[in-house]
Amino acid sequence: MAVRVAIDAMGGDAAPDVVIEGVARLLESAGEAIDISLVGPEETLRERAGAIGDHSRVHFVDAPEVIEMDEPPAAALKGKPRSSIHLGLGSLGDGRADAFVSAGNTGAVMAAAMLLLGRLPAVSRPALPTIFPTLKGHCVVLDVGANMDCRPEHLVQFAQMGSVYSERVLGCERPRVGLLNVGEEPSKGNDAAKAAHALLSDTDLNFVGNVEGGDLMLDAADVVVCDGFVGNVLLKFGESIKTVLPALIRGEVAALGTNSARDESLALLQRVLGGVMKRFSYEEFGGTPLLGVDGNVLIGHGGSSSRAIARMIEVAAEVVRSDVRGTIAGALATQG
Amino acid sequence: MAVRVAIDAMGGDAAPDVVIEGVARLLESAGEAIDISLVGPEETLRERAGAIGDHSRVHFVDAPEVIEMDEPPAAALKGKPRSSIHLGLGSLGDGRADAFVSAGNTGAVMAAAMLLLGRLPAVSRPALPTIFPTLKGHCVVLDVGANMDCRPEHLVQFAQMGSVYSERVLGCERPRVGLLNVGEEPSKGNDAAKAAHALLSDTDLNFVGNVEGGDLMLDAADVVVCDGFVGNVLLKFGESIKTVLPALIRGEVAALGTNSARDESLALLQRVLGGVMKRFSYEEFGGTPLLGVDGNVLIGHGGSSSRAIARMIEVAAEVVRSDVRGTIAGALATQG
Repeated sequence: MAVRVAIDAMGGDAAPDVVIEGVARLLESAGEAIDISLVGPEETLRERAGAIGDHSRVHFVDAPEVIEMDEPPAAALKGKPRSSIHLGLGSLGDGRADAFVSAGNTGAVMAAAMLLLGRLPAVSRPALPTIFPTLKGHCVVLDVGANMDCRPEHLVQFAQMGSVYSERVLGCERPRVGLLNVGEEPSKGNDAAKAAHALLSDTDLNFVGNVEGGDLMLDAADVVVCDGFVGNVLLKFGESIKTVLPALIRGEVAALGTNSARDESLALLQRVLGGVMKRFSYEEFGGTPLLGVDGNVLIGHGGSSSRAIARMIEVAAEVVRSDVRGTIAGALATQG
Repeated sequence: MAVRVAIDAMGGDAAPDVVIEGVARLLESAGEAIDISLVGPEETLRERAGAIGDHSRVHFVDAPEVIEMDEPPAAALKGKPRSSIHLGLGSLGDGRADAFVSAGNTGAVMAAAMLLLGRLPAVSRPALPTIFPTLKGHCVVLDVGANMDCRPEHLVQFAQMGSVYSERVLGCERPRVGLLNVGEEPSKGNDAAKAAHALLSDTDLNFVGNVEGGDLMLDAADVVVCDGFVGNVLLKFGESIKTVLPALIRGEVAALGTNSARDESLALLQRVLGGVMKRFSYEEFGGTPLLGVDGNVLIGHGGSSSRAIARMIEVAAEVVRSDVRGTIAGALATQG
């Protein structure tokens, strides 16, 4: 049976066009496995949906209101009940879709998901993961923004949910779980980290201890837990590398001076750098599921390209098929 | 009058040789402006001090005990009262030196400085700054490890102390102060950040509001405050870029395959990358002062080269001459 994915057509810096292009890309490759609902102002969407050849595989859900990318979430949620975020999540709540994906206002999607879908039983705090590049591949870091002040037991739940995601969706067997901290010893860190270290040691997770900031990209763990304040600062700092580094490199190259003999060299430099920076471009992964809410909700970067949108829809289908939600509910109920 | 700097000869991964080399470099360039005390096992130091031509400008302070780089600070402080860290700080306490510098065990130096020198009046929590590269130069980030759990008023003191350091030592006029946070709005962040935003707005500092992780390297502020947990994670993550990136680049180059025509291109790549990575090498700055303790204490990276050691001694002299300690005492007494 096809997985039914509702997508926020108005989510993302270049919406709705980039979303429509993403859906078109997806339909080319996904065959019959995925059905799409495009959620947004229907008239506008139909006008612009030329890129999507086969309309029969796309449904339109009319959502006339638009929550802007930089709109404060609380006000937007109250003031725009007919937004694409509301109605997309609504189609999940009433069973017309299996997953909802959005590259829109992250705060608004998280808040609306909490409000409209609620938490899974036994989950205290849903968490948003992201994916960091490492020397050997990648690791999952969570939370990156859903929870600012966290108690130690929240960090333990993040570890459990992150492990399920890593294993089920990213295919990592018995993921190594690390606690983001300032040193290796269990006695290191702030009060929450010290207490979380003790609690994590008592779980049946594959807990490998503290992971320092410098070890994150060195493949020290597959899942790294932290509060959403630290995680968000780190995520955004990491993302900025792909802006800052090419700018610094341009500066160095300019300082060398130019002559035609170097053109070939510069082309190689460009090519190598492009390959490396791709690792810092989170859009390869499309988006990540908001873990712990009672529904399959995926959040993508506001700057997602059509390729990232297509990928996010595929990941959403994978999250549904591998039953991330049910597995989390089961794992946390057992740990109780 | 010459500034008298005591240096921990046993501090750093390659001590004492790299420290002795650093002192030799410094003496070549610093003229009569700086007097050096080398603190460590005197016999060993005298044997190895061949690199230092003119012994008359170097005093030896015998400290037979060595605190190792990875030794737990608390035990080391109790168990080794005749260490180079103890006796170096001691020479500061009794007026035989104007500054103490160490590339040794950071935790031990911080703890010993607190114990032996104490805090300046009105300072609740001394803080350790570091320097991050930005597109336009650099910014000061503090605290990066002295304080794990911070109250909002601690963050305000970090801002005051960081401003004095930025202005006096780094020559930044009326430094822009930012609060590390997860969004621009004052309502964003964890409880401490929200309260700190309100408090900072009421100071006479040049407070420019919240700074996100992604803006740190984009020259959003000259001084950025955060608790020592976040700061330490960010510092170590940032430092790891200069390990991770060249490794990723080597991987990309290897994937391209090699042929002799590319040798010239690879040499250029190497040169450009070296220039950029220098920006991520904090040793250009030598070390940073532990702000708020009652004495001039500078802490350098364990991996400091002789060049970094020499630079750290120069910075120490600048910290003494510009009276960072007195200025902080004055600024905090006024703010009450």
